[in-house]
Amino acid sequence: MTTIGHLINGETRCDAERTQAVFNPSTGAADKQVALASKATVEEAIAAAQAAFPAWRATPPLKRARIMFRFKELLEANSETICRLIGEEHGKIAHDAAGELQRGIENVEYACGVPELLKGEHSRDVGPGIDSWSEFQPLGVVAGITPFNFPVMVPLWMYPMAIACGNTFVLKPSERDPSSTLFIARLLEEAGLPKGVLNVVNGDKTAVDCLLTDSRIKAVSFVGSTPIAEYIYSTANANGKRCQALGGAKNHAIVMPDADMDNAVNQLLGAAFGSSGERCMALSVAVAVGDAAADALVSKMQAAMASLKVGAFSDSSNDFGPLITAAHRDKVVGYINSAEADGAEVVVDGRHPEVEGHAEGFFVGGTLIDRVTPEMVSYKEEIFGPVLQVVRVKTMEEAMQLINDHEYGNGTCIFTRDGEAARYFSDHIEVGMVGINVPLPVPVAYHSFGGWKRSLFGDLHAYGPDAVRFYTKRKTITQRWPSAGVREGVQFAFPS
Amino acid sequence: MTTIGHLINGETRCDAERTQAVFNPSTGAADKQVALASKATVEEAIAAAQAAFPAWRATPPLKRARIMFRFKELLEANSETICRLIGEEHGKIAHDAAGELQRGIENVEYACGVPELLKGEHSRDVGPGIDSWSEFQPLGVVAGITPFNFPVMVPLWMYPMAIACGNTFVLKPSERDPSSTLFIARLLEEAGLPKGVLNVVNGDKTAVDCLLTDSRIKAVSFVGSTPIAEYIYSTANANGKRCQALGGAKNHAIVMPDADMDNAVNQLLGAAFGSSGERCMALSVAVAVGDAAADALVSKMQAAMASLKVGAFSDSSNDFGPLITAAHRDKVVGYINSAEADGAEVVVDGRHPEVEGHAEGFFVGGTLIDRVTPEMVSYKEEIFGPVLQVVRVKTMEEAMQLINDHEYGNGTCIFTRDGEAARYFSDHIEVGMVGINVPLPVPVAYHSFGGWKRSLFGDLHAYGPDAVRFYTKRKTITQRWPSAGVREGVQFAFPS
Amino acid sequence: MTTIGHLINGETRCDAERTQAVFNPSTGAADKQVALASKATVEEAIAAAQAAFPAWRATPPLKRARIMFRFKELLEANSETICRLIGEEHGKIAHDAAGELQRGIENVEYACGVPELLKGEHSRDVGPGIDSWSEFQPLGVVAGITPFNFPVMVPLWMYPMAIACGNTFVLKPSERDPSSTLFIARLLEEAGLPKGVLNVVNGDKTAVDCLLTDSRIKAVSFVGSTPIAEYIYSTANANGKRCQALGGAKNHAIVMPDADMDNAVNQLLGAAFGSSGERCMALSVAVAVGDAAADALVSKMQAAMASLKVGAFSDSSNDFGPLITAAHRDKVVGYINSAEADGAEVVVDGRHPEVEGHAEGFFVGGTLIDRVTPEMVSYKEEIFGPVLQVVRVKTMEEAMQLINDHEYGNGTCIFTRDGEAARYFSDHIEVGMVGINVPLPVPVAYHSFGGWKRSLFGDLHAYGPDAVRFYTKRKTITQRWPSAGVREGVQFAFPS
Amino acid sequence: MTTIGHLINGETRCDAERTQAVFNPSTGAADKQVALASKATVEEAIAAAQAAFPAWRATPPLKRARIMFRFKELLEANSETICRLIGEEHGKIAHDAAGELQRGIENVEYACGVPELLKGEHSRDVGPGIDSWSEFQPLGVVAGITPFNFPVMVPLWMYPMAIACGNTFVLKPSERDPSSTLFIARLLEEAGLPKGVLNVVNGDKTAVDCLLTDSRIKAVSFVGSTPIAEYIYSTANANGKRCQALGGAKNHAIVMPDADMDNAVNQLLGAAFGSSGERCMALSVAVAVGDAAADALVSKMQAAMASLKVGAFSDSSNDFGPLITAAHRDKVVGYINSAEADGAEVVVDGRHPEVEGHAEGFFVGGTLIDRVTPEMVSYKEEIFGPVLQVVRVKTMEEAMQLINDHEYGNGTCIFTRDGEAARYFSDHIEVGMVGINVPLPVPVAYHSFGGWKRSLFGDLHAYGPDAVRFYTKRKTITQRWPSAGVREGVQFAFPS
Repeated sequence: MTTIGHLINGETRCDAERTQAVFNPSTGAADKQVALASKATVEEAIAAAQAAFPAWRATPPLKRARIMFRFKELLEANSETICRLIGEEHGKIAHDAAGELQRGIENVEYACGVPELLKGEHSRDVGPGIDSWSEFQPLGVVAGITPFNFPVMVPLWMYPMAIACGNTFVLKPSERDPSSTLFIARLLEEAGLPKGVLNVVNGDKTAVDCLLTDSRIKAVSFVGSTPIAEYIYSTANANGKRCQALGGAKNHAIVMPDADMDNAVNQLLGAAFGSSGERCMALSVAVAVGDAAADALVSKMQAAMASLKVGAFSDSSNDFGPLITAAHRDKVVGYINSAEADGAEVVVDGRHPEVEGHAEGFFVGGTLIDRVTPEMVSYKEEIFGPVLQVVRVKTMEEAMQLINDHEYGNGTCIFTRDGEAARYFSDHIEVGMVGINVPLPVPVAYHSFGGWKRSLFGDLHAYGPDAVRFYTKRKTITQRWPSAGVREGVQFAFPS
Repeated sequence: MTTIGHLINGETRCDAERTQAVFNPSTGAADKQVALASKATVEEAIAAAQAAFPAWRATPPLKRARIMFRFKELLEANSETICRLIGEEHGKIAHDAAGELQRGIENVEYACGVPELLKGEHSRDVGPGIDSWSEFQPLGVVAGITPFNFPVMVPLWMYPMAIACGNTFVLKPSERDPSSTLFIARLLEEAGLPKGVLNVVNGDKTAVDCLLTDSRIKAVSFVGSTPIAEYIYSTANANGKRCQALGGAKNHAIVMPDADMDNAVNQLLGAAFGSSGERCMALSVAVAVGDAAADALVSKMQAAMASLKVGAFSDSSNDFGPLITAAHRDKVVGYINSAEADGAEVVVDGRHPEVEGHAEGFFVGGTLIDRVTPEMVSYKEEIFGPVLQVVRVKTMEEAMQLINDHEYGNGTCIFTRDGEAARYFSDHIEVGMVGINVPLPVPVAYHSFGGWKRSLFGDLHAYGPDAVRFYTKRKTITQRWPSAGVREGVQFAFPS
Repeated sequence: MTTIGHLINGETRCDAERTQAVFNPSTGAADKQVALASKATVEEAIAAAQAAFPAWRATPPLKRARIMFRFKELLEANSETICRLIGEEHGKIAHDAAGELQRGIENVEYACGVPELLKGEHSRDVGPGIDSWSEFQPLGVVAGITPFNFPVMVPLWMYPMAIACGNTFVLKPSERDPSSTLFIARLLEEAGLPKGVLNVVNGDKTAVDCLLTDSRIKAVSFVGSTPIAEYIYSTANANGKRCQALGGAKNHAIVMPDADMDNAVNQLLGAAFGSSGERCMALSVAVAVGDAAADALVSKMQAAMASLKVGAFSDSSNDFGPLITAAHRDKVVGYINSAEADGAEVVVDGRHPEVEGHAEGFFVGGTLIDRVTPEMVSYKEEIFGPVLQVVRVKTMEEAMQLINDHEYGNGTCIFTRDGEAARYFSDHIEVGMVGINVPLPVPVAYHSFGGWKRSLFGDLHAYGPDAVRFYTKRKTITQRWPSAGVREGVQFAFPS
Repeated sequence: MTTIGHLINGETRCDAERTQAVFNPSTGAADKQVALASKATVEEAIAAAQAAFPAWRATPPLKRARIMFRFKELLEANSETICRLIGEEHGKIAHDAAGELQRGIENVEYACGVPELLKGEHSRDVGPGIDSWSEFQPLGVVAGITPFNFPVMVPLWMYPMAIACGNTFVLKPSERDPSSTLFIARLLEEAGLPKGVLNVVNGDKTAVDCLLTDSRIKAVSFVGSTPIAEYIYSTANANGKRCQALGGAKNHAIVMPDADMDNAVNQLLGAAFGSSGERCMALSVAVAVGDAAADALVSKMQAAMASLKVGAFSDSSNDFGPLITAAHRDKVVGYINSAEADGAEVVVDGRHPEVEGHAEGFFVGGTLIDRVTPEMVSYKEEIFGPVLQVVRVKTMEEAMQLINDHEYGNGTCIFTRDGEAARYFSDHIEVGMVGINVPLPVPVAYHSFGGWKRSLFGDLHAYGPDAVRFYTKRKTITQRWPSAGVREGVQFAFPS
């Protein structure tokens, strides 16, 4: 059985004391295992990163960027392998894995522009003959802790920019699907990254806690569920670290009566069921304004879902694949049961999908639930499965209130043709990423990703311009060159 | 006896259950008292701020800025009163209070430019026919907690920009010298600020804890000592708030052998003893490189200090005034005693100053201590008094190591004529604000203020461009207007 | 009879050899005359500006900005006088003059933020140990040549920012209504501007040509008609000067069938007839899509125009005032005649307005002309009078083609409720300033003003961020401090 | 004999009516010839570019950038061929050609970041419910005219960014060494650029004049000599085009008495003689402050020049190669003769170099001339050969005056260890690109390149951030969505 190890100081390492099975969710089989790092192993990785820091910090940003240019080439050249590795351990269909990789590459592309992004502000004559400027210097060793649902993309949100800014990095990926993450980390070394600048440790809470408490780690980026995000954020802060921790979501789409309903349905299909709904930007709630809109939406959705195909990652004709684990499949099914028990109407039922030849896979089919109401547990919590719930409201204000009252504020969308409705919605909705006729309003790599409310802990969003600020600290220099022979008067007052 | 109250929803209020004496440190007399807000009073202030938020948020930034333009005029027109109020309760000499006020006004001036500063980033065609842009929206109700040493300037670091960004504000100033703070808050209302947008509550830990835990407060800015800053930061974060907390300092100046020594001495006089050293940017340690430089520095400093004049705030010929309390005076004297006991040489002794007619004032004279070493308590801790310590080292590297090893990283300075030394120093020193021949490298209002290490908790610095980011949250909107009649294909893959 | 002179080096001067009458267009009387500067007088102004440059350039931007803060206060305090002076010589009604002044003040407010706007870009480590940064340095003496229609606003587009950037200035305002321009220039001196930094010379082509050819003038900003703009631009360029020259316009509004027609009519009334149409952003052509929209527009417009009131500036109940001269009135009437002769339908005829008690004033009433077609002279040329022409088209594409084919490309607008139409229009229309349901899409002061095609000659737009670039030149500094004792290898290859 | 043709609409074309010989300057032989385009051929290229524009403009910036990523890879993969082609026709030694190529590639790298660089400014609530933003839209078809001395780098300053911004391009390279230029243009097509987006026409004044007058060309970038630059600029402007035209230079280095003289000499060797001095940034004048500095400089320079090796491009051990033509060689020799005749002292004489086996090559050896004075013709004019002139002055002020008085203001440098001298110099020198101990202060690709005075005609500098502004036009959109049913009041006053 293959054991997936760590990447420390340029070497593949295997800390074999503890391991955990890695499943192929399409078959239910556990063909591999992953090493779980001990505290000592994590500390070795941190030490490697710290040792690599001074030389890496002194490397001009342009030279650092050039390694990212080469990294992009290698990611593209190896896309088939990467997508296969994602599919085997996560279950994502190849076209979806390719989308994930592409979005990850966009972050590498953005990091290629780091010389521009690191520019500080220079002011001549802040006083007579006095100049002042700011520099954005790297923090030192920084860490990333990433989730199972995007084993390639989310790590690429983090370390390319962190490293391009002059930091060194320790990554702790998800132990559920670590192979693709490890594979691309090695590609970055192949691209010319010096040893120790990027280190990957696989592990569990032992590894996480070590990263959160070791004083050599200066910052932590996290993506996962809200309870863990909150723990990460408070623990990192209490240990003197900068932290950004992204948590859960419950993304609503408002469907207005004037929306192009066929378009909305087509968009929702992908946004709700793509990647089995295991995306923090998945659209899991459709809020229909008025019963006419709701009826049209539900009936057209039901019709469209007839051709939805769930199945193994290896068949590209499938629309989406299995869930990550058997336990998670059971949890998703539990939410459907609970909605039904609470009085909601299961219009399309994906609880018992037939996937020929994959009886042991962790599958749930596309599910549509109508007449969901806000007090139901299945509405309040994040399901993270291929389940679209429909809530019916009378007015746009009521729809917006629903969204604003929800614990999460990651993404949202409105379907309409009306400029005024769109502007009012985008202005007043308490959500960080807003789509107007765009159901998955994931910002492009040159903007930043972040939710509001309990979807993100921290001041700065992920990737894009905010990442440059997150991975650097501002230094302000004030300079004056006194002319020789000039004696200057004593000044006791605060300078003005 | 005058009781200093609160400003809540545009009205002066007095929560009289608990009060605390306010001293005139030049005379030692307590002629006034300040009301200490109960939890209920603080909650009233928060409620007022929350009620004022929707209308204020909807006020265009340009209109908000215009109130800041008017505020600046009123601050200038009332400068004499403001400086007198500072002097009476803080003890600062008029010329120094005027400097403080001027620096505060600069932050109001910067806030006048908020329409420019709030600009988001707009991208056409992030995909075919898809646009995306970011907006920086206000947070809601935010709070500031400010220290005694700059009762006017530090509040003006915070609320002008917070308010210009569309937030409403609750300020808890220092209870030692609240009058000037309250006075200028009323000027802002006179400038046209709607009621409830700025509220001031005087108080102690009760008030602070209420601000830190009330869920309606979205962010907290703090300036004070490091232990309190740490408490504020972790408590605010644990309660779901954004926080920036500025703490203590120990600012070193390296005096290089090639420095213009007379200039350095003149600069150090003001930077070490101005405002009695009660500044987080006070230069309290001079690190002389080589004994020749050290000897020259000490002897010239000693000579220059002969004419230093400590005394009451009301006499403008004084160079600096008393310390804030009798207890703090005793603490400063204690540090001098301790340095002496540890073997350092008290070259100029300010422990027993004679200030005619002010026998009860809390005075300590300018003090110069040579041959201080890093293990002494008086070196490790922040003295916050008119005491300059000299440490002797052999090399610039040794001097820099000393600074980089210190707990604090607020400000630092190098005196040299050499371009290479200056560049090497500013690049590698682990301090957030760096001066090259500038002993108090306080960034101007259009740059940002912030230390490193345990001098600042948080990602973003105070005032300047960082304040705009601190007081707003990023929203990213992605927009697409589907053409009528066009049906779009279902897309299950992650969009690329 | 009052003679209006010049402001040179802080002194009011009168070059009396040649003068020209200044009319009150509401009465037709010429109560004042303006001195027309000789070449020698203009050269004195240039010399004064050049002498003032070194000290002004060395004044820190923050100090320069503070004079703009004070200037704003004085403009507000003197608004009544300013509006009266505009009214007397231009004819603008008080509420309209107040709007002009306010828009001018916004440019002063923006110039108050010049310390932020002048920030250069700083890059650490462009190579090993090499830093590089840019500074935006002032040009020297720059000139402005401004039109009659905004005697206060257009000068305020130019010199506040030019001066805040460290330049000194020579302004040649319109000789038709110079008093308000001169009055506010003196206010800037009252605000603390050193003598010679701003100079005003009244004059005609003699003055203009002197400014265009004198080698001490480094840049020229111009606003006026297109033929003159072209002359200014090519002459200034041929004499080694930077130049931006804004010319004429023909601003179209597309009225879509789905537009809120009452709103559109209300908006068009002000945009077409305000200031008698003597605005380069006046909306002079309404393009109705479909006959239904056209019929509704024309009939509602006709009804609304019944209450339009033209009259003298001194009566604030008037909607708009006279034209600037008798000759211009005749020219406008000529365009109406020509449209009629060409077969268009004069729906509302303003050719013979009755303005009681002002029989000699240069009045034309609000005029509405339907069924105008693109080949008519009155369509091709800029009328600059209170005349709204309606063109009828069948499709939005046809409407856009019309606009894109026109010589001018200053402003345009679409009235619609449809997000898609608005986005398509704003993306593809060949016009520099675009309104979506905004009939006068004049950018606010913190954005920049500029048309496309033959409406603007030059790379950079007027005011806003572009003005900072126009009034400064980029200097890029690359710095390296070699370590002593280190010998560096000879390098013959181009550095990479 | 090979005939070098054009690249039009993706096809290699040969307009054979007129041709011109292309020499190998190392051998003096003319083995190839270049086609000189007729007006009709240039118009075909323009037509191809115009036809390609709409689709290219509609391609999202990210997709356009991706072609630049691929272009970079191809340039790197083909570097050997490119350097050989440069060497054969220009004479540059391989290490120098590699430096040129690398600098060119840096501009491609910068263009890869165009999605970031094209971001416009977005303002919410410029008025109540009104938003405004700017977009930077492409111009259309733009042209570049480039010089012989950097046949690869200077074209890469222009078209990668122009094209990345959405424009299409017609390039007219130097007819002296067109092969490398054409070769890399084909690589861009190989990288995926659609046909017609980049076209290359070889030619002479016929081609240039066609580009300058054809109304379909919207902008022209030029690099060459000052008289031609001036012609290009005024002709392009008179034909309604945006233009930036870079001309000649005379770059001075001030050598201060405190400079590290060995370092200065090493730096000057490469900066003066590299690429035979045929660089607009070549350092051709050393201004020594004080005779001691001058004597040391001359003697050390003389010693160092003993090992300078001039020769054919094919031998990498050579330091620099031949001049571009026999005529140019004669001109350079003429300047040396003239300096000698004017009384200057030819310390090292390169007029008769022996280059074994290359008797017919156009060689001049490294030449050092001392005691040059400002009135000599060889000082006033640009020599563009391997000649370093030394001017002796008494003070730094005198040195700076010399530079500020010169017609050109491209680059300059100071050698010193003194921070104050460096700051004073960089602040006050009237030159666009300033080096502090950096003899060739060519800005990196993420800053912009441009001289002052008669070294550059235009507002915006070449490449870097300024190029984005040069190759786009600003459009400002102001948007308001009126609420249905709400009727808005007529507004005649100018909106405030």
